[in-house]
This record gives sequence, C-alpha cells and structure tokens, in this order.
Amino acid sequence: MKEVRIGVVGAGWMGRAHATAFRSVPMVFGREPAVPVLDMVADVNEDAARSLAASFDFRRAAGDWRAVIADPDIDVVDITTPNHLHPEIAIAAAEAGKHIYCEKPMANSAGEARKMMEAAETAGVVTLVGFNYLKNPAQGFARDVIARGDIGEVNLFRGTFDQDFMSDPDVPFSWRQDRSIAGSGALGDMASHTLSFSQYLVGDIEEVCGMTATFIKERRVAASGSGHGARATAEAPSRGVENDDICQFLIRYQSGALGAIEASRIGTGRKLWLTYEIQGSQGALFYTQERMNELHLYRHTESSDERGYKTIFAGPDHPNYAAFFPIAGVGLGYNDQKIIEAHDLVVAVATGGKAFPDFRFGLEINRVVDAVLRSVAERRWVSVSEIS
Amino acid sequence: MKEVRIGVVGAGWMGRAHATAFRSVPMVFGREPAVPVLDMVADVNEDAARSLAASFDFRRAAGDWRAVIADPDIDVVDITTPNHLHPEIAIAAAEAGKHIYCEKPMANSAGEARKMMEAAETAGVVTLVGFNYLKNPAQGFARDVIARGDIGEVNLFRGTFDQDFMSDPDVPFSWRQDRSIAGSGALGDMASHTLSFSQYLVGDIEEVCGMTATFIKERRVAASGSGHGARATAEAPSRGVENDDICQFLIRYQSGALGAIEASRIGTGRKLWLTYEIQGSQGALFYTQERMNELHLYRHTESSDERGYKTIFAGPDHPNYAAFFPIAGVGLGYNDQKIIEAHDLVVAVATGGKAFPDFRFGLEINRVVDAVLRSVAERRWVSVSEIS
Amino acid sequence: MKEVRIGVVGAGWMGRAHATAFRSVPMVFGREPAVPVLDMVADVNEDAARSLAASFDFRRAAGDWRAVIADPDIDVVDITTPNHLHPEIAIAAAEAGKHIYCEKPMANSAGEARKMMEAAETAGVVTLVGFNYLKNPAQGFARDVIARGDIGEVNLFRGTFDQDFMSDPDVPFSWRQDRSIAGSGALGDMASHTLSFSQYLVGDIEEVCGMTATFIKERRVAASGSGHGARATAEAPSRGVENDDICQFLIRYQSGALGAIEASRIGTGRKLWLTYEIQGSQGALFYTQERMNELHLYRHTESSDERGYKTIFAGPDHPNYAAFFPIAGVGLGYNDQKIIEAHDLVVAVATGGKAFPDFRFGLEINRVVDAVLRSVAERRWVSVSEIS
Amino acid sequence: MKEVRIGVVGAGWMGRAHATAFRSVPMVFGREPAVPVLDMVADVNEDAARSLAASFDFRRAAGDWRAVIADPDIDVVDITTPNHLHPEIAIAAAEAGKHIYCEKPMANSAGEARKMMEAAETAGVVTLVGFNYLKNPAQGFARDVIARGDIGEVNLFRGTFDQDFMSDPDVPFSWRQDRSIAGSGALGDMASHTLSFSQYLVGDIEEVCGMTATFIKERRVAASGSGHGARATAEAPSRGVENDDICQFLIRYQSGALGAIEASRIGTGRKLWLTYEIQGSQGALFYTQERMNELHLYRHTESSDERGYKTIFAGPDHPNYAAFFPIAGVGLGYNDQKIIEAHDLVVAVATGGKAFPDFRFGLEINRVVDAVLRSVAERRWVSVSEIS
Repeated sequence: MKEVRIGVVGAGWMGRAHATAFRSVPMVFGREPAVPVLDMVADVNEDAARSLAASFDFRRAAGDWRAVIADPDIDVVDITTPNHLHPEIAIAAAEAGKHIYCEKPMANSAGEARKMMEAAETAGVVTLVGFNYLKNPAQGFARDVIARGDIGEVNLFRGTFDQDFMSDPDVPFSWRQDRSIAGSGALGDMASHTLSFSQYLVGDIEEVCGMTATFIKERRVAASGSGHGARATAEAPSRGVENDDICQFLIRYQSGALGAIEASRIGTGRKLWLTYEIQGSQGALFYTQERMNELHLYRHTESSDERGYKTIFAGPDHPNYAAFFPIAGVGLGYNDQKIIEAHDLVVAVATGGKAFPDFRFGLEINRVVDAVLRSVAERRWVSVSEIS
Repeated sequence: MKEVRIGVVGAGWMGRAHATAFRSVPMVFGREPAVPVLDMVADVNEDAARSLAASFDFRRAAGDWRAVIADPDIDVVDITTPNHLHPEIAIAAAEAGKHIYCEKPMANSAGEARKMMEAAETAGVVTLVGFNYLKNPAQGFARDVIARGDIGEVNLFRGTFDQDFMSDPDVPFSWRQDRSIAGSGALGDMASHTLSFSQYLVGDIEEVCGMTATFIKERRVAASGSGHGARATAEAPSRGVENDDICQFLIRYQSGALGAIEASRIGTGRKLWLTYEIQGSQGALFYTQERMNELHLYRHTESSDERGYKTIFAGPDHPNYAAFFPIAGVGLGYNDQKIIEAHDLVVAVATGGKAFPDFRFGLEINRVVDAVLRSVAERRWVSVSEIS
Repeated sequence: MKEVRIGVVGAGWMGRAHATAFRSVPMVFGREPAVPVLDMVADVNEDAARSLAASFDFRRAAGDWRAVIADPDIDVVDITTPNHLHPEIAIAAAEAGKHIYCEKPMANSAGEARKMMEAAETAGVVTLVGFNYLKNPAQGFARDVIARGDIGEVNLFRGTFDQDFMSDPDVPFSWRQDRSIAGSGALGDMASHTLSFSQYLVGDIEEVCGMTATFIKERRVAASGSGHGARATAEAPSRGVENDDICQFLIRYQSGALGAIEASRIGTGRKLWLTYEIQGSQGALFYTQERMNELHLYRHTESSDERGYKTIFAGPDHPNYAAFFPIAGVGLGYNDQKIIEAHDLVVAVATGGKAFPDFRFGLEINRVVDAVLRSVAERRWVSVSEIS
Repeated sequence: MKEVRIGVVGAGWMGRAHATAFRSVPMVFGREPAVPVLDMVADVNEDAARSLAASFDFRRAAGDWRAVIADPDIDVVDITTPNHLHPEIAIAAAEAGKHIYCEKPMANSAGEARKMMEAAETAGVVTLVGFNYLKNPAQGFARDVIARGDIGEVNLFRGTFDQDFMSDPDVPFSWRQDRSIAGSGALGDMASHTLSFSQYLVGDIEEVCGMTATFIKERRVAASGSGHGARATAEAPSRGVENDDICQFLIRYQSGALGAIEASRIGTGRKLWLTYEIQGSQGALFYTQERMNELHLYRHTESSDERGYKTIFAGPDHPNYAAFFPIAGVGLGYNDQKIIEAHDLVVAVATGGKAFPDFRFGLEINRVVDAVLRSVAERRWVSVSEIS
C-alpha cells in the first residue's frame, strides 16, 4: 500500500478539519492509489499540536513548522495557519521539495502569492489551495454544463458571500480584523471564495471597480481564542477594526461578460450565502452554498411554455458523488467537500499528476483581490494587469 | 357622487392597463371619496384611441393629446406614451392646471424631469409617477418595518431587475432600443423600478459607479407593432441597438449604507426578477416580484436558535390589501397594484391631498439614472449632486 | 354588440366578486363574442342588493331571488348564496330556461346536485360551477401536460387545502359551521376544491376512506356578519360547531392510481395551501395556490444528471394568460381566475357552447364528498358507486 | 483511554457506513468518554468481511456472525444485515450480554421485535435502532419546540417518504422486493422512517387505516449485487415483486391528533422526500430531508401582520451541531447523522446510560407497520392495540 505522508502546520480549527478529511479519504474513496498518513502536526502552540496529534493519531507533534519541512519522511506540507504565514512556509516547503496544500486565501498579496507560485513551479511540486467549495459535485457539474455550451455565451456573473457571524458588535476583535495578519476582511476572507467560482466557471477578469465599508469600527479584544466562538469580557479594551465588513465590486471579464461580487461578514439574514448566478445567451445557473446539494439550471432553448429553473440534486452522475452515495439527494456536508479536496491532493501526489486549484489559480484570485483593493483606495477602475 | 375625470394620453398596452385600473377602482375601493370617469383618450393613432374608447366606454376619443389638455372637463391627464413625450405633455398639463398621472420613467433626463416637477409644483397640481410596484401591500409593510427600526440601521441594499424578454436575438428592434425615444435600456426601463424601491426604502443616494453592455448589437426592425409580442420578418433590415442590455452599478447612500443594482433585459432564467435584499444591523428584508404576495423578513434580535428568514404572505393587516380580500394569502396580481395606484391618485385629487410617488420622487430617480450614465461614460464615480 | 344579461343572486362578498369579474371581462378579453351586462342583483337583504347594485351599476335590485328567475331579460342566473339555497334556485332557474352560474360546492348533497344537473340537462342550459382555481392558466397547462402523456401513467395524487382562518378559537360561529346551511366543513368547503383538481387532472374515483375531526368544539356566536372578518363579543353565547375542522381521506382511482386529500381550516402555517402533487411513471407535477403563477414540472425522462423539478411561471403560451400580459411571470391574482371563469361562461352562453366545469362535473365532486362522509360515519371504505 | 469495542455484522453498504461513523466519532466529538474500536466484522461473504476489515483497519474479520457474539472482547454487536436476520442475531447478542446497535426496521414483524426487546431488556443491555434521521440537530430542536409548547396542541401530522430509485422498470429485483427477506416495501423500508418522526414528535398512535399498491409488478433478477446500483441484463428472468411500491395510511393518535403518512419508492420528482408537517393550535413545523439543514417554524402567536414560516438553519444552538461547526448554516450531510448516532451509542455504553431510539421505540414502529399491513389486508381501521 502506497502512503502519502502529511505534515500539518497549524493545529486550530482548520488543522483539525484537514486531519479529519485525510482520515476520511480511504473510508470514502478506498486505499488506491494511496493512503494519506497523518505523520506530523506542528503549531507554535506546541500543546495544541500535541493535543491534535493525540486526537487524530498523528505520529508526531512539533512546536515549529520548520520541523515539518526538515523531515525527510513528509510528502505534503499542509498549511492551515493564519494567512500572513502562508508565504514563508510555502516557499520553504517548495524549496525542500515538499508538495503543498495551502488554505485560502493563498497569501495576503499577489506579490507574495507569485513568489509562492514561482517557488513551487521551480520545484515542480504539487500545489493545492483550499478553495474547498469548488469540490462540491455540483460545481464540477456546473463547469461541465458551461463547458459544453449548454448556457451559451456567458453574459453575467453575479456572486455573493454573506454571513452574519460578525453582525453582533459584541463579537470581539480577532486576527481576522487585523490587517497585518488577515489582509482584507470580507474581501479576502469571503469574496475570495466567490472569486474562485468566478474564475472556475467564467474565467479571467479584465478589470474591477469596488468599494468597501467597515460598519462596526471598534471591537473589544478577546481574552483568548480567535475562533468564531471567542467572546470578550465587558472590561476588555477596544481595538479599531482594520479591514472591511462589506465589499462590493463590479467586474469586466476578458470575455466581455459583466459581473458583480458582494460580500459581507455582517450580512444579517444569511448564514452561508455563498451564491452565484450565471446568465448566458442560452441558459443560466444559480447556486447557493446554503443548499449545497442543489444546482439550479435554466435552459432558454426549451419549449417556450415550459422554460424554468430546475432544481437538480447532486447525485452519482456528478463528479465524486458516487464515492459517497449510490442515489441522488442524499446530502453531502461541508466536511465532505474537504474529503474530496484531500483526496484530489492525494491522487495528484501519488500519481505524479496535478491538483486543482493550484497556486497558479490561487495567484489569479490574489491578483483580483489586490486590484479591488487598489480600486477602492484610488476610487477608479483597475485593470488586473496592473497587478503583477 | 363626486367624479374625477380622466384623460388618458396613449392608447397602447399601458393606456389600456390604466383604463382597466380606473374602471376597477370603485369595484375594489368603493365610490368614496370619488369615482374616476374615463372621459377622453387621445392617441396620435386616432383609430387606436377610438378602439380603446369603445372597449372601455370612454366618453370621447381624440387624435391629439392637446385635446385632452384643452378640455375643461378633464381633471387628470394620464400620460402613457413613450418616454420622450412625457415632458411636453406633462408641462402643458400642469400649465393648464391639470393633475398629472405619468408613467415611469418620468423623463429621459433629469433636466426634463426637473422642468416637469417645477411646472407641476408651480401649478400646485397633484402628480403621481407610475412606479406601480411600490403599491404592492408588501412594500408599504416593508417601509413600516424599516421606519419603526425593526431591522436597525441599513447597511446594504442589493437590487435587481432581470427579465428575459429580449434574450432571443430574433426579438426585433423597437422603440425601447431607440435612445432618442426610450433613453437608456435596462437602466432606465428596468433599474429605475429597482431604484424606486431603493429610494422608498433606503433613501437618498450620494454617489454611483456603473457599467453597461449591449450584447445583442443589432436587431431586425419589426414590420409593425412595438410591444413585447412584435416579430420581424427574416427579410427585415437590421438596426443597431442604441442602449444597454445589462446595467450594473454600485451605490453609496447618504446614510453611509452601500448598495448595488443590476438589471438585464436578456436575463435568462428570470421572468420578473425585480428583487431587493436590505440588510440592517438588526434584521433584513428580501423581496422578489416573481412572488409578489410574499415579503421575507429576518430579525437578528430573535433567540439565536431560531433566527431565520420568515415568509410573510400579504394580508389584510398590510396597506390596501383588505380592500381586496379578508384573509391573507389570496393572491394579488400585477393589475391589482395598478388599481391601488389609480385609487391613490383619485383619493389625492378628490381630497386635495398629495399622491405618492410624486414628481419630486420621480426626479430623484432620473437624477440617479443620469449619474449612472455619466459614470459609465466617464468611467468614474459620479456624485448625484453633479446632476442638477 | 351582443349582450349576456346576468342576474346575480346573493349580494355578499362572493356576489361582489362575481360582479367584479363580469365587469372586467370585456376589459381583459374584449367585447366579442358578447359583453356581460349586470342586469339585476337579488338578496334577501334587499338593502345589500341595492348597495351592490349602486356600486356596480346593476340596472336593478330585488329582495327575492325569484325576481331574477321571473325576469325574461335575464340570460344567466348567477348563484352566490350559502350552499343550502343552491338547489332550489338552480332548479327554478333551469325550469325557467336560464343559464346557470353556481358557486361551489354545487350542493350540500349528491342527491340535490343530481336533481340540479338533471333539471339543467333537461332544460338544455349552460351550467358552470365556480371551481375558479381550475381557471388558472397553470391548470390548463397541467392538464395538457398530463393529457399528452408527458408524465406517463399517474400513480399518485396528493392534495391538500389548508387555511388558518379558523385557528383562532375567538373566530365566531358563522353559517360555515352550521351543518344545515354549509353541509360539511373543511371537507365540503375546502377539500372540494382539491377534489376539483383531482377530477380535472386524474379522473374518476373508485372508492374512498376518510376521517374528520373538530378541534374547536364551541365558538361564540357573532353579533352580526358571517364573513371572514366577523368577530363575537365576549358576552356572546356559544354554539357547538357542527362540522369538521380537519378532514383526511384516502382515494383509489378507477385508473388504479392511489391518492390522499387533506384539508384543514385550522391549518396553522398555511394561508392558501391548496396544493397537489401528481406522480406519474415518467414525471410529476407540483402546484400550490400560494404561488399561483408557478407550475412545477419534473420529467423523469431527462438525462439522469439533470433531472429535477422545474419552476415554470405562467406565461402567454398557457391558456388565457395572453389576454392579461404579453410576457411570462407577470402575476395573475385570485380575481383574475374569476375573470377567466366569467369569460368562459359568457363565451359558452353567447356561442351556444358548453362551459366547464359544468353540473355534471360538480355532481361528481358532491358524490365523492358524500362517499367520504359515509366512510367517516361508518368507518369503512365506501365506493363512490354507492352514492347515487 | 476507555474503549468501546465494536463488532459489525454485515459488510455491505450499511456496514461500511457504520464503520465510517465509528471512525469519525473521536474526530468530531473527541475521545471522551470513550473511543470506539473497530474490533471485528463478520459477513456470510467472508471475502467482503475481509475487504471491509482491510479498508477500515478492523482488527479481525469472520465469515459467521456467531464469531462476533462469541468473542468476549466485543462490547457492541452492530447489526447491518438484511432485515430478516435481525431477530436471531440480536437475541443471541442480548443473551451474550452484548450491547446492540441494530439497523432499521428493527424486524419484519412486531412479534419478532418484541422478542428482541424482551431479550435485551432481560439482559439489561444498551440498544439503539438506526433511525438515523432522528439524529439530525434539526430534529432535536423540533422536539424541544414541541415539548415546550411553542406550537400548542398538535392537531395534524402529515408525513411522506418518496424516492424515485425504483421508478425505472429496469431496476432489477433485489432482496428489497422479496417479502421473506425485507418484509413490506415502501411501508417498512421508508414509511418506518416517517413513523420514527411521528413517534418522536407526536407520540403514540391509536389506530390506522391504509392501502398499498405495486405498480411495477415484475422486475428482472439482477445478475449480482443487491444495492441501489444493481442492474439486470436483458436476458435475465423476471420475478414478481412481492411488496408495495406505494403505501398511504391515515392515523389517529392517542392524543386525538390526526395524521397521514405516504411513501413511495417510485416517487418521481423526489429524491429524499422524507418530510413532515406538524400543525398545532399555536404554530407549526415543516421539514424535508432534501434540505436537512433547515427546519421551518411557524408561530401563530406572532403579530398578525408578520406571521409566516421561518427557515431556520441548523447551528451551534441545536443539539450536537457545535461538535461539527462553530457557526450556523455550514452543512451537515447524511454521514454526519450517522456519526451522531454512533456517538450516542458509544456514550450510552461507556457511561452506563441509555441510548435513543431503543428497542422499545423500534418495537412501536414495528407495531404500527403491522397494524397498517393488517388494515390493508382486511380493508378496515386497525387499532395498534390489536398488535401484540
């Protein structure tokens, strides 16, 4: 049995999610072409690393990510740290010849992302950026529908990502509001997912024009913890929020299509309102992550008395679904997307293939994010070509 | 019994819709404070006027709109002509002391709209612009919900108006694609309705930045007819489409809220996708005209285990509904909106009150439309204050 | 211009709805083949008759329905009284050679309905029973879909009609709870509408087995008024409710299909939850009156990767819609169904044709209702053939 | 670290699902109070057992389920065989003092189920029947809502379970159509799930009256395989289908509430249409498994202008959700339900508590199923008390 040995960097919520995914891969997809092995987990908080190691039977734990890179047994460096640490770790991993699995956004700037991509391409290693929502069987199907021309030429992309987890002003300041660590707010953290759909389904962007706003300008600093559950005491000091609560931008695609993307982390009413609507000359698609097992398809070419949006439940005829269930409509969940993603990585590493979405894809997302930021700062349309 | 005598200008589809609405007013709302009387209809196509008069028992028909204005018996001049004729007729009506009911958009430019408003205000006549979608009981309720603070401070307005009636390239060129008659395309014809929601529910706009595109650049000229049902022969000459198929723009409100509006007349998949989502600090609203009897309300202030969007069917507790039905959920239709609108006009005229939305409101819509057009032309953010 | 002269019996809410519908017919459908004329309205409450006459320009009012029957100018006797009066009036009308437009349910028993049908057939007059929900363009389309075999052999009909207008125990006793006037409760008043869909779309029923229950066993007697808005004072005496709040029954169709119908007038959560789902060997249909402009169609014959329910908005390709609007998705309302119904009657009378649904259809509904009542009383399956 | 040693009987699809669930328990819920260990898997097809053992790192495989029972190290016997084998295995397990995890339906008859229950209660072992849909956080929340009286007295339960996996007549005969192995068809296989909701949320049933039908009367015998993916060759012999494609029955609850349950395995249009609607005097609930992360709640006690069904996404305030995700709206899938179920079992075994739903619950479901079968056979209402 072939093994792909994983070294996870970061023992927080996302590190645990990756470990869960890797452990689940053989249960869902079987043991061929390889089985991922949880070899090492490293976290600057070594106790956290040890704890995760115990829970998931990692062979080893470490307090420094360099231990993962230095270890000759590790095949894949899996980066689940806060965003600002991605570049240094990824470049070191590439230089050590490790394959790289990196959470999104790939970096806090296109410049860093480019260095990561160049390092990885020079090293010839497999890369995969964790835009896990692309792994939903519905998305592979959507891509097929578009690719075979079923909705004609795309005219319009309309995307959102709203969540309301920061609507409450009592949710404390965390690293997600610290520009030096997280980069932008709703733009980089959330709209980047929407951009991953845009890039995957519609293609390259020519130019953007955007705006942002921060409505809750100060938050109290959490005593401890940085996750969604963190709470601050009433006596905690306040700190200014450094990035955007809401972001909206217009898009002109290289193809001539138009687009708009909107994201809010104070989006009352919405829980995981990661959506897109794609209108083409012959049909249209609609999707929302809140109902992740459904893709909505409209065919304008049908008889005029029965055109309408169709609700298609994911099923065994869609990519990767059959590994889970033999019939349509049995629900996949968020974690299942991550299992598919981890499996794709394992297959690529084991077979010498490529994984998707790779660093080249991730860089494109970062370039658009930077173009939006420049557009906001300079109050003008910005061409993505301005961003190296 | 008091009468309000109506003179309709324009005997097309919309003229007929107005006549239907006026005839229905007393059946729905009763005969107090006044009954509208279909006194005269005028159309440059005098046969069309005569035909409509016969169908709806108008007392008189005419071939020139000036006959309506000149007649001392007419109380209300009801303008249902193509857009470019609105200003001349409305100003003449105001100068003759007639009350004015004018279809939307009020004019093809803010400059013209302002002249109309000034003429009407000088004359002290009642004005009403036919943004009929505001007359849906759901909208009056939505406004109340916002006004009493139930959704807190508005952060975000997201509006659309998509229809697919021009998706087919075989739909011929009509006056709607002629810039000199119709002004802009999806922007003025459709997004103006979305703007009417924005204005009514969120308020004044500070600045906009937009883009437009025309995807079907030529259409064959229809042999006759200009309506939605017109078809061109295969031998018909082509003519260049002069205005936008799709329009998208970003909004910054004077209140600090952000917004985005998108409209498409080639919006495959959507039939009457006139929607808004309004996110506030304490709650949110969603509405789509495709399900016009429903308003969706979210209250973030509810217990955290049972927050969710609620589907509220229009009912007798919402404005104007009880005139139609004694219980909730019995469907109103498009024509019922128009009946409420006509009734509001009749009441205002009969009681010496004001109607809503008036020319001042209509002017604000035209100013934003002009700001968007300038923004598109100059590729920059444009303040509404730049538009006189 | 040909006229069809209408004599309305009953000046309550439904009489007004009919008057509105007749007045609207020429506005929607034009003046051919005939124009309905509101000739006379009669009500035992002559003031009510006079008031309705004034509001709708009836030529005459009367305090006795016999005046309508006796008048040689009347073409159509339009019966909108409480149910128990239908037979006497209808039979007298038939004997006088009048065409008959009768609200549903046709009668409180199949025996009476049969006498009505026989009288009408003997007289050779046009009959139409007011199952107005069948007039929705969506239903004509549904029938076409089934008739052309698009969903194959029907296996299952599942129908409901829930409303919550009597959920509140403070809603007073009215004639609807008086068995001698209204007959059964949710069964005859509401499930009869569901049965009209069943009869129209699936066909004749072989046998039924049902149950009923009354949950709010006493209600205070309303001081006045009998409509949905009636309220009783706290001191009002109580009266026992005499018919069913909820009714459910199983169906075996002559075709071999199975079915179930459920109705509740205390159906919390539902406003006009008149629905059906029809499953066939090749496809399925779903409809709810709460979204009356939509029909949901599923085709099992499509490619297995894109089977799903499709939401089809009513449009000009569906029966009668084009008389209202030139494009799909513009909402029809409840009153528009009634306009189509009145128009169908006018056309039948003017052209010497037949109307649908006629007394023969109405009798079938009454027979099933009686079979359900017997099934409930005797706690057994009852064949519809047991009901003469 | 405490271990709970599992012996799985049956190495098919469901055995694999259980193994996956057990392996996932510590990843989701942590290692306290115990960690399940996959100790042995047995299948009459010993190769299948060996293969599953290899995939999931079971310590041992066997060709006979008695090996699991005989092994002193095994704490839990987990029965995932076809239904007809449940009683013998379960009773032997109980007699050996093993805790029992048994797939649903518990048995093919109430008589057998009662013997299983008695054996288990005599032995004092933990039992859990795999009605996994009850483990969805939405259901625990629904139960709380009802228990605290938020929807008042329940009047009506309306439940379904439609799937279309046998709509195609080319789907071959499998053990599911063999009465001696599977018992009833849509009734026992599918409606039993709906009954589990009914039992959990509404309570004990007094009497039932039902009907069934088999529409596809013969199917070709599959060459091999019995799962959802099995296909038969064109030359395969046919065999008569021995149980119901569709089942519908009326319910009278001991509380006085009414109900109806309908299930179809040829339910075109539906993929996992396991639904319920529960109407109470003060509110209502609606749920469909096709959108398993949503519960729909209606409160009739709200202000009359804003009553409506609310869509509540499962979140960390609902039972068991927080073990998966820190914020609401992140989708759980089918497998996650099974993880919660396996965890509940592990906790009960490790802490000496009880699991839910236990054999007593499972027996109640079997009794109702038998009552329905008798009702169908004898064409009459059958009291559940008739079934021992």
